[in-house]
Amino acid sequence: MTRGVLLDLAGVIYDGDAAIPGGVDAVARLRRAGLTVRFVSNTTRSSKQTVVERLAAIGLPVAGADVFTPAHAAREWLLRNNRAPYLLVHPSLAPDFRGLPDRGRRAVVVGDAGDAFTYAALNEASRELGKGAELLALATNRMFRDADGELSLDAGPFVAALEFASGNHATLVGKPAPEFFRSALASMGCAPDEAVMVGDDAEADVAGALRAGLSGALLVRTGKYRPGDETRFDPRPTSTVADLAAAADWIITHRDSVSGHRQPS
Amino acid sequence: MTRGVLLDLAGVIYDGDAAIPGGVDAVARLRRAGLTVRFVSNTTRSSKQTVVERLAAIGLPVAGADVFTPAHAAREWLLRNNRAPYLLVHPSLAPDFRGLPDRGRRAVVVGDAGDAFTYAALNEASRELGKGAELLALATNRMFRDADGELSLDAGPFVAALEFASGNHATLVGKPAPEFFRSALASMGCAPDEAVMVGDDAEADVAGALRAGLSGALLVRTGKYRPGDETRFDPRPTSTVADLAAAADWIITHRDSVSGHRQPS
Repeated sequence: MTRGVLLDLAGVIYDGDAAIPGGVDAVARLRRAGLTVRFVSNTTRSSKQTVVERLAAIGLPVAGADVFTPAHAAREWLLRNNRAPYLLVHPSLAPDFRGLPDRGRRAVVVGDAGDAFTYAALNEASRELGKGAELLALATNRMFRDADGELSLDAGPFVAALEFASGNHATLVGKPAPEFFRSALASMGCAPDEAVMVGDDAEADVAGALRAGLSGALLVRTGKYRPGDETRFDPRPTSTVADLAAAADWIITHRDSVSGHRQPS
Repeated sequence: MTRGVLLDLAGVIYDGDAAIPGGVDAVARLRRAGLTVRFVSNTTRSSKQTVVERLAAIGLPVAGADVFTPAHAAREWLLRNNRAPYLLVHPSLAPDFRGLPDRGRRAVVVGDAGDAFTYAALNEASRELGKGAELLALATNRMFRDADGELSLDAGPFVAALEFASGNHATLVGKPAPEFFRSALASMGCAPDEAVMVGDDAEADVAGALRAGLSGALLVRTGKYRPGDETRFDPRPTSTVADLAAAADWIITHRDSVSGHRQPS
């Protein structure tokens, strides 16, 4: 029995500033069908406030508490563990990291910093790791679909670089970390096997959600999806569908039959 | 029976522009003892010509043919395989890559590019890999001892980043690639088990040489050496000595007893 739905954002609901056709209406249909919806994004280039504003701009008003981003999860981790961050993140994330400890034990926080990934900044981070700092990864995605339509380097390759340099193993706070999915599920009082995930990333969204125990995970053929993605990672998608509109149809149709067992696609 | 000696350069014979005390004399003693010497450097910040000039400046004139650098090995690989390079290397290596194919199948060549490791350049390299280019690593060293005395990121972490992004496995042309040691051995008509390596890198120099079949490999406590390095990688050094002068003593003393079996240290 499906009670909750986790939706990825970029590539599922919007692409850049443009809404993906039928997506906003699909969210409304899921809600009308009595399903609770949360938004789990791996964006590491937008603060939570920016995400909320972008959703409002395409006609989808949501509460900040319903949006889960890796930066927010990292902030909670740093507060919980009382660590001062060395930030290797996109400048736009600054609001999410205000008011944290600035002395004491350090943690290097790596997001998709884009052009802020200079040699000097990476080197400084590796020296912090050499002095005992922990390594926190907002995401380990390999690539993202860039404004020019091509794939560009995401945070993952730079996390791999710092792991290789230091011998440290990064703690991942974004997808596909099971804790990330579970904190979104907990916010709606939903067990993992009562929820379905929808995403365009066969590895972080789909395989990640299934490993976290969700009853189903749908791969959409929008955003960064490339033909063949559905067979590239294990576990494979419960089903692969055209877009979020088709995903909503699938979820509503199968809501009583999805119960912790993967469906044939 | 030891007939040949391979010497690392930075951290063994010189540190920056300064000769390491006793190093030049040690090379002269090895030669007077009838041993043939070749220089195998993993520098990816100096062209071969610059290396030869630096050795001359500290009083050690050597022929260019006696110096083996990863850039030179990469150049030979590119010519042999008829590949056009996309270069992610330090600007100072430009002379080593002149006159190579500029069209046709590509290979991304990664050295210690330093500040030339920008996000834009790494991203362009990952797009070349996405289009089918091969990945050639001048070196996979984690860190090097920088001008300020601290460790800085070497080429390895960036090779790891591009491997993670692309799923490609890099072909290594520098140390510890067995082919690199063997091309230096071949130039002196010496079998691997007739040669000893001396270096300050327990992983690339020492473990690498022993894996390539050399009869011995000495770790010096100069350059990037840090206490504990001698037990950090396998195989471990045949012996760990103070510096190149002590290494020369060891090699001359043990020249008849080193024969493809590791000595107790």
